[in-house]
Amino acid sequence: MTSVRELAQGARAGARVLGTLDRGRKDAALRAIADSLRASAEEIYRANRADLERGRAAGLSEAMLDRLSLTPSVLDSTARGVEDVARLPDPVGGRRDMRRLANGLLVGRQRVPLGVVAMVYESRPNVTVDATALCLKAGNAVLLRGGKEAASSNQALGRVIQRALGDTDVPPACVQIVPATDRDGVRELLSLDDLIDVAIPRGGEGLIRFVAENARVPVVKHYQGVCHLFLDAGCDHARAVAITLNAKVQRPGVCNALECLLVHEQAAESLLPVVAQALREAGVELRGCPRTVQLVPEARPAEDSDYGHEFLSKVLAIRVVRDLDQALEHVARYGSNHTEAICTESYERAERWLREVDASCVVVNASTRFNDGGQLGLGAEIGISTSKLHAYGPMGLEELTAEKWVVLGQGQVRE
Amino acid sequence: MTSVRELAQGARAGARVLGTLDRGRKDAALRAIADSLRASAEEIYRANRADLERGRAAGLSEAMLDRLSLTPSVLDSTARGVEDVARLPDPVGGRRDMRRLANGLLVGRQRVPLGVVAMVYESRPNVTVDATALCLKAGNAVLLRGGKEAASSNQALGRVIQRALGDTDVPPACVQIVPATDRDGVRELLSLDDLIDVAIPRGGEGLIRFVAENARVPVVKHYQGVCHLFLDAGCDHARAVAITLNAKVQRPGVCNALECLLVHEQAAESLLPVVAQALREAGVELRGCPRTVQLVPEARPAEDSDYGHEFLSKVLAIRVVRDLDQALEHVARYGSNHTEAICTESYERAERWLREVDASCVVVNASTRFNDGGQLGLGAEIGISTSKLHAYGPMGLEELTAEKWVVLGQGQVRE
Repeated sequence: MTSVRELAQGARAGARVLGTLDRGRKDAALRAIADSLRASAEEIYRANRADLERGRAAGLSEAMLDRLSLTPSVLDSTARGVEDVARLPDPVGGRRDMRRLANGLLVGRQRVPLGVVAMVYESRPNVTVDATALCLKAGNAVLLRGGKEAASSNQALGRVIQRALGDTDVPPACVQIVPATDRDGVRELLSLDDLIDVAIPRGGEGLIRFVAENARVPVVKHYQGVCHLFLDAGCDHARAVAITLNAKVQRPGVCNALECLLVHEQAAESLLPVVAQALREAGVELRGCPRTVQLVPEARPAEDSDYGHEFLSKVLAIRVVRDLDQALEHVARYGSNHTEAICTESYERAERWLREVDASCVVVNASTRFNDGGQLGLGAEIGISTSKLHAYGPMGLEELTAEKWVVLGQGQVRE
Repeated sequence: MTSVRELAQGARAGARVLGTLDRGRKDAALRAIADSLRASAEEIYRANRADLERGRAAGLSEAMLDRLSLTPSVLDSTARGVEDVARLPDPVGGRRDMRRLANGLLVGRQRVPLGVVAMVYESRPNVTVDATALCLKAGNAVLLRGGKEAASSNQALGRVIQRALGDTDVPPACVQIVPATDRDGVRELLSLDDLIDVAIPRGGEGLIRFVAENARVPVVKHYQGVCHLFLDAGCDHARAVAITLNAKVQRPGVCNALECLLVHEQAAESLLPVVAQALREAGVELRGCPRTVQLVPEARPAEDSDYGHEFLSKVLAIRVVRDLDQALEHVARYGSNHTEAICTESYERAERWLREVDASCVVVNASTRFNDGGQLGLGAEIGISTSKLHAYGPMGLEELTAEKWVVLGQGQVRE
């Protein structure tokens, strides 16, 4: 069997060719992948059925089986996603900020691929295709290490993709399925710092911590989304209710959903009961500070562990705060640098929020749910970063590239 | 004694205050540091003499003692360096690419400090001050872990800096000297991923590998500079000689100096003897491929280990190559992604070099020595990165920051 190192060497060699291809050749390869996914649907379903049967026998939950399942509609939307990426502009090759220096040198930056990306993810097999499309478009080779439960599906998708690339200018070695063995295999992959430029883990916190702790290669990651919304004194009540409701219940299980509501004490008496009623009608369980419980008797008293907690369900922590400063302190202490929103009519407090909150996305008068590559206009995203190195927030095509310096001279030497 | 974790907690708390200060307050703090360095010169010299005496007793080389020494001229240029940083524009707070989306949201990016930077470096105590100035200006707190040889000097510089900050709006806790104990202390520092945003090692390859292998925090680094220059067929001979000479001998001991010369076989017969003579007159030892030795009998035959080697001295490897493709292959195999130059009159080959070479700085018709923050117009640099994550090339103030997303709404929620 090919070793992980050999797969990575293949990817590295492929990346050297891919990195210099023009947009037209990369887009043609993406369209070939989309066509091939559709033409090979039966082969893919067969492999997926094998995973589903094994999963059922192993007692996977219905939710897990649902994530694992490649239905015709999932496969079609996955193929269309690849075509959408082909339509996005090429992030690579442009130069910017070219300045002429006193000595006549023209210097600036040129955007280049990262090289080789290692994706480490869990059960959803469509990530295999989504990540491939974004990496190839950005000129990167990709090593795909999905979950054991999806092993057959991922192998089949990999075969289909490599076959499709065989008729294009993109070397098939640019897309490598790393066999899903045990965690030692992941550890080996993450140790290849001479061959891999970045690892991007996607999945539960356990997987991400494992990657962060074992990687010798750089990792771009986020652990969790403990998102807050601060309802300021004097904010518009109708907006406050609509934003709170949307942020909490539109899709409670995702990382940009609301987990904790902060309410200015001057707004609490009139606003909090209204907000709480809307939330309760939407089936949300409320856990509040003593002042919250006074104003909303149906709320359960919050434990300290309810603050800073990522519920990912219809549970919301609530706290009445003295002022903006206390709200900022709460967010600094309990937030996870993901998405933090304020609802306010005050110019000064909006600007202070925007400036002082340290989060990948800081929002005024809108739902936390907008922190998403598609919603922010990136076209697509490969993940989200809550650490500030390299990327902070949704990672689109540009975040899968770097910039090198270029120096154009006429014989200049240094004094 | 205060633990490393406590020092980092202090830095983190300081960073929260520093991160929101306006330029005027940060610059005033930098000027206070410069003044205080001058006013406290005697205290600094005394501590430095103690280090020098200990170093002499321990048998440090003259070169090491020289790097360790804080003379009046070094101290003055260090203080002036701090004032220079105060004059640079503030990298923090600006917004860019603010676009209005179909739903009326105005979204874009706002530049923010990284937070807490950990510098790990070797003997030069002036790095303590240079890194402090750049980190503070970019709104970051800094943990300074210098070498054991400079322990007294660094402690004295830290005292002087913290004293100066006492009269400013920058919390003195933003600058922390981490005691130089053993490598376990460095390992502990590098494990604090809840408190430190990035580690920047500066020094020999051994130190940098130690940091890269032991860090749980992100690391921005470069191992070595194995820089090439390719003399193309038809290039200008006078330029070729001048650039080769400058790149190799102007300062052979630094990372952007030339280590290997590649010569197109069509240019070799007429050009290589001329270049070789100029190099020999400058005292450079030549190690060449068989064709080189035919044309330049004084050159020693090169071993394979001479290619990809960072000599950091007046030794140069030379290889005659068939064409641009072979030059590109050589650079991809033996280069270190640092600085790669071509001397050419061909538009097509210049553009291919710029596009296909993967290095932090790619140069046409100029010396490799220009890959330097000061030379490229960054004002100052804190290090150089040869990995593509976060920064690629010299790291100035902007590379000590990140960008968060800002979303300005009027009550928008997600459908």
